[in-house]
Amino acid sequence: MALEGLAYHHQCVLNNVAQHTKLTSEEIRFFLSLLKLKKLRRKQFLVVMGEVSRVESFVTKGCLRAFTIDEKYEEHILQFAIEDWWISDFRSFLTGQPANQYIEALEETTVLQFSYEDLQKLYEQVPKFERFFRIKLQNAYMSFEHRVTTAISKSAEERYLDFTKRYAYLEQRVPLYMIASYLGFTPEFLSKIRKDLSNGG
Amino acid sequence: MALEGLAYHHQCVLNNVAQHTKLTSEEIRFFLSLLKLKKLRRKQFLVVMGEVSRVESFVTKGCLRAFTIDEKYEEHILQFAIEDWWISDFRSFLTGQPANQYIEALEETTVLQFSYEDLQKLYEQVPKFERFFRIKLQNAYMSFEHRVTTAISKSAEERYLDFTKRYAYLEQRVPLYMIASYLGFTPEFLSKIRKDLSNGG
Repeated sequence: MALEGLAYHHQCVLNNVAQHTKLTSEEIRFFLSLLKLKKLRRKQFLVVMGEVSRVESFVTKGCLRAFTIDEKYEEHILQFAIEDWWISDFRSFLTGQPANQYIEALEETTVLQFSYEDLQKLYEQVPKFERFFRIKLQNAYMSFEHRVTTAISKSAEERYLDFTKRYAYLEQRVPLYMIASYLGFTPEFLSKIRKDLSNGG
Repeated sequence: MALEGLAYHHQCVLNNVAQHTKLTSEEIRFFLSLLKLKKLRRKQFLVVMGEVSRVESFVTKGCLRAFTIDEKYEEHILQFAIEDWWISDFRSFLTGQPANQYIEALEETTVLQFSYEDLQKLYEQVPKFERFFRIKLQNAYMSFEHRVTTAISKSAEERYLDFTKRYAYLEQRVPLYMIASYLGFTPEFLSKIRKDLSNGG
């Protein structure tokens, strides 16, 4: 049963990798040998702000949020992640500096993780992963840039509608006040926008 | 003379590539054959918002700014670029969608450019560039994330000081009102911060 479980999680990550690169069975074996399974309870932290975190995680089950805390101890949500997403404090992962965000499970969550050192081994043994993570990074960078430029240039209504279109699956799983935080709104302001929109406003 | 000029620009981009990968002379020849030199006058646009731009540019001389325009026709600076930086509307470059920003020369500027199609050829012929652009993307993503998290979590003074520390060379070349726009401040607010800091405040 445990093995069947592991096989399921491995299949998830292999499907993700297969989107951009085709591995031989030997490469698959080596890649999987580097991955560790980690289970998180609801509200358990994957990354703690101020602590070094040199792991990259692939979500096979569950949902997480990344958030930072400002000088007034207010939370600001940076990102969500669900099944088939990669998540880490990228700066901490790459540089070994302390993380500047928390990453917390919002549901019972399972991730597959590799360490920074093992990723370097992977790049050396299987250079195809250079291409794979180059493409993943491109997509992440584009999404991030899209988020910043729309935050600057679009109205609150447009940004909410854009969010619901891009991330329809998140609205069902994440409390509204967190979506408000992600968009930089107060919960009250998001409620008003939703009400206006449902009144055809 | 013209050739000497071109050799200079080629050397600049080869130095940049050499930071992360070592090319053979044949690979160098192929890479350089894909690059086109482009000169921009001051205030000339490299990228026009609303138009597709499938080129990536490496700055060998000069200074540019990337900015977007909001619903009230106000400008917001997204990025600066000087010598030794890569710049593009990344989404337009990758997807072929219209650019959502302008990129404008602030000084007389020279860039070396390649097209999206030629980059695909480069990845195929010289897979080392997968690694090179993977690392470039990592750095770009980290800087971007740093900018967003500090915008959320740090005070205005801290953000200005962080900017002057990271980008000291820009303060000399870019008007203050543009640095204010980059930081999301009004020019008056930035003046006040600078005054307070110089008074030891």
